[in-house]
Amino acid sequence: MTDAARNALVRSLLTEENPFNSTGDVIDWIANRNREVGVSVEEIPFAAMKGWHFDGETGNLVHDSGRFFSIIGLDVRASTYTQLHWQQPVINQPEVGYLGIVAKIFDGVMYFLLQAKIEPGNVNCVQLSPTLQATRSNYTCVHKGRIPAYLDYFRKHSPHEVLLDQLQSEQGARFYRKRNRNIILLPDAKVTATEDFRWLTLGQIHTLLRRDNMVNMDTRTVLSGLRFPADESGLPPLSDWGRELFASEASMDGESTVDGVLYWLSELKTVYELVVDKLPLRDVDGWMVTEREIVRPDRRFFRVLGVDVTIENREVANWCQPLVQPMQHGISVLFAQRRRGVMHFLLQAKVECGNFDVVELAPTIQCQTGNWRLAPPGLAPAFLPEFDAGRIPGRMVVDAMQSEEGGRFYREQNRNVVFLLDDGVELDVPKNFKWLTLGQIKEFLRFNNYLNIQVRSLVAALEYR
Amino acid sequence: MTDAARNALVRSLLTEENPFNSTGDVIDWIANRNREVGVSVEEIPFAAMKGWHFDGETGNLVHDSGRFFSIIGLDVRASTYTQLHWQQPVINQPEVGYLGIVAKIFDGVMYFLLQAKIEPGNVNCVQLSPTLQATRSNYTCVHKGRIPAYLDYFRKHSPHEVLLDQLQSEQGARFYRKRNRNIILLPDAKVTATEDFRWLTLGQIHTLLRRDNMVNMDTRTVLSGLRFPADESGLPPLSDWGRELFASEASMDGESTVDGVLYWLSELKTVYELVVDKLPLRDVDGWMVTEREIVRPDRRFFRVLGVDVTIENREVANWCQPLVQPMQHGISVLFAQRRRGVMHFLLQAKVECGNFDVVELAPTIQCQTGNWRLAPPGLAPAFLPEFDAGRIPGRMVVDAMQSEEGGRFYREQNRNVVFLLDDGVELDVPKNFKWLTLGQIKEFLRFNNYLNIQVRSLVAALEYR
Repeated sequence: MTDAARNALVRSLLTEENPFNSTGDVIDWIANRNREVGVSVEEIPFAAMKGWHFDGETGNLVHDSGRFFSIIGLDVRASTYTQLHWQQPVINQPEVGYLGIVAKIFDGVMYFLLQAKIEPGNVNCVQLSPTLQATRSNYTCVHKGRIPAYLDYFRKHSPHEVLLDQLQSEQGARFYRKRNRNIILLPDAKVTATEDFRWLTLGQIHTLLRRDNMVNMDTRTVLSGLRFPADESGLPPLSDWGRELFASEASMDGESTVDGVLYWLSELKTVYELVVDKLPLRDVDGWMVTEREIVRPDRRFFRVLGVDVTIENREVANWCQPLVQPMQHGISVLFAQRRRGVMHFLLQAKVECGNFDVVELAPTIQCQTGNWRLAPPGLAPAFLPEFDAGRIPGRMVVDAMQSEEGGRFYREQNRNVVFLLDDGVELDVPKNFKWLTLGQIKEFLRFNNYLNIQVRSLVAALEYR
Repeated sequence: MTDAARNALVRSLLTEENPFNSTGDVIDWIANRNREVGVSVEEIPFAAMKGWHFDGETGNLVHDSGRFFSIIGLDVRASTYTQLHWQQPVINQPEVGYLGIVAKIFDGVMYFLLQAKIEPGNVNCVQLSPTLQATRSNYTCVHKGRIPAYLDYFRKHSPHEVLLDQLQSEQGARFYRKRNRNIILLPDAKVTATEDFRWLTLGQIHTLLRRDNMVNMDTRTVLSGLRFPADESGLPPLSDWGRELFASEASMDGESTVDGVLYWLSELKTVYELVVDKLPLRDVDGWMVTEREIVRPDRRFFRVLGVDVTIENREVANWCQPLVQPMQHGISVLFAQRRRGVMHFLLQAKVECGNFDVVELAPTIQCQTGNWRLAPPGLAPAFLPEFDAGRIPGRMVVDAMQSEEGGRFYREQNRNVVFLLDDGVELDVPKNFKWLTLGQIKEFLRFNNYLNIQVRSLVAALEYR
């Protein structure tokens, strides 16, 4: 990144001023788009899903083209000291998709081109998504659809136009080893915002992130990888919190060194043996396939359903697809605390069956809200009962409902919280948790496959103003 | 690492002086051990392999305990612009083993405790191996054998005793996603070298690496991760080559930045789609299982055989196991060149079916020596015909035959070459190759799963004196 780009990025982070669209304009625009488009998402029997069938041999739910994605089974053996063994359905999509944002600098400030995008699983239909959100099946036109807008910027970019290009994981409990290419480009060429697209500053996006379900998961994961320079000179006056974030971002040594965290992860990845095998969906134990859903008899965790989607917009689009619906909302909480004079964040090393590498760093608390209350005493997720009861001294600095990706998940929302602990409160931290600075978090983001999508969503919501 | 440890490490790198054993002593010791031990490795029919059987359902070759390792099938679909699809047998061992070295500082110099270890596949029986080389099956005593020596140092270490702790990959063309924990400890406690163990300096190990098949692959991969400080003050006079290495190690920016290399890898991992599925061995196309071997009808690539091993030493040990034998020796060549005043190394991004992450960085040239001459003109591995014909101006700085791990591979040797190109020679470099400094190489080693075992073997052989 050039110095000019770096400065423009920080100005973007710290301003909501935008001559193209005020934050209020964007809110109205999304509200109008939500009113204008007619979206019908109807739950239908699997047998009525055009373009999809259960494979005769495996029972997997597959697209007729053999591409796109499928619902398959997974056999999971996890062991540490106790042996765990379970089977479950999972989304299989062995291709890397693009989550790409185009940026441009206007008048010394960097703007990001976001799209008002309809996704069938969204609670509110339209959310702000990246410039380009395309699976390989999309952009090689397996669906015989139109070529996605702005695709050529991503397929034909020069190295010097890249602000960020990372392979990052999707939800490890729902996807089998799925990754997307999180990429931000600053193209030399002129870029015109077409009808469904708007230029926004990072400051504006942060304001919108305070609202429920405005900025979609794909936008959040892409933006989470941006690093901000530590040099405070020339910056407008910052809040105490903003100053803490810049200082934390500049710190590569916290309570642990980066090497210390890497060694701790090597240890955990050795201890948590995880053997995951794909399985025909029809052989999955503990789940049943009915006419309308793939579900557990006790209806826990999630179910897979089929939907018929019709979108009436400038033109009419209609298609069928499976979606995954959680049985409860979830919650992700990231604890923050000033430690040794630097802001730290408490991450847990979490095993999820679809993880690319056994263990990824996750938020302090991450779970479905309903399930934990069923857990035997002492087996609830760490910190959750105390947090839930308001017994931890501190305050919320981020608190909003955020959606999972509406192209795969049906009305899935998770409460996203960043919770700033009071100075001096000492938590009793289990050995699969570690306090990291923001600089360390961004360093692990840089090398891919270290931070899960839930913690990236929270990192993206940190406001520096 | 403390400053004292860092200084002791660099002194170890630069000296062959050793009051405990001279390099000549070590060479004699290994020669004697090779003479003393009676090792018989007899190729036998699979049906005669005690403790092993072909699974009735899958046809996989498995250990009766269900643990240890097995030979299974793999279905591989790789695509870029052309579609490749093949099936092959592969070693499956879904557990992370220890490759551990204990270090101690005596009189300001760091010493590494290596073991004279017999492995059935070795061309010469005994080679220098790490202090501890143990699969999870070993150290949890599935074989009901003795607990490996020095295991407790690794199971009960404190964080401050760790010099290095990385998960690194094994051979991606032969193993399915196999990784080992490469770890070096500097324990506070006293360590006594027992009969099969000797303390060596890094300088001595480098001298031994100039000889064929003395230092085993496991030792080479563990040592490859060590980083040496750049500060030349207080060092004994170095060779020009040694000075170049220290300077290259200090350089994190070369022809490309670390971010530039990461972005290039994101691009390649997106382009090279790789779908790998486990398959019952009996369903593998193009391979046959006979009474004595698993092999292709055209006898290309490799074969799997069964052996009966008897070692007569202080006590007699006898066991049976499968081994993998390549059909030819291989060659690994790493090109080095001074570019922009800093020594660079030319790495290729290579797809191998068992890779943990699609693409890993490999040596400039890596192949079996026989296979490439069968390739149609223009399809030989890049640089190999010119290198083979001596048409590239430069000189060898490393050149020795080195063994693959003798616990899995039968008499497999690869020629290990580091080739220093003359200044100013400009190679025509394909786009899946990149020049990296040693500092950048070590940075990627640090974050795991970036450099394959063949290039780590070459990095370990670089002499800094």
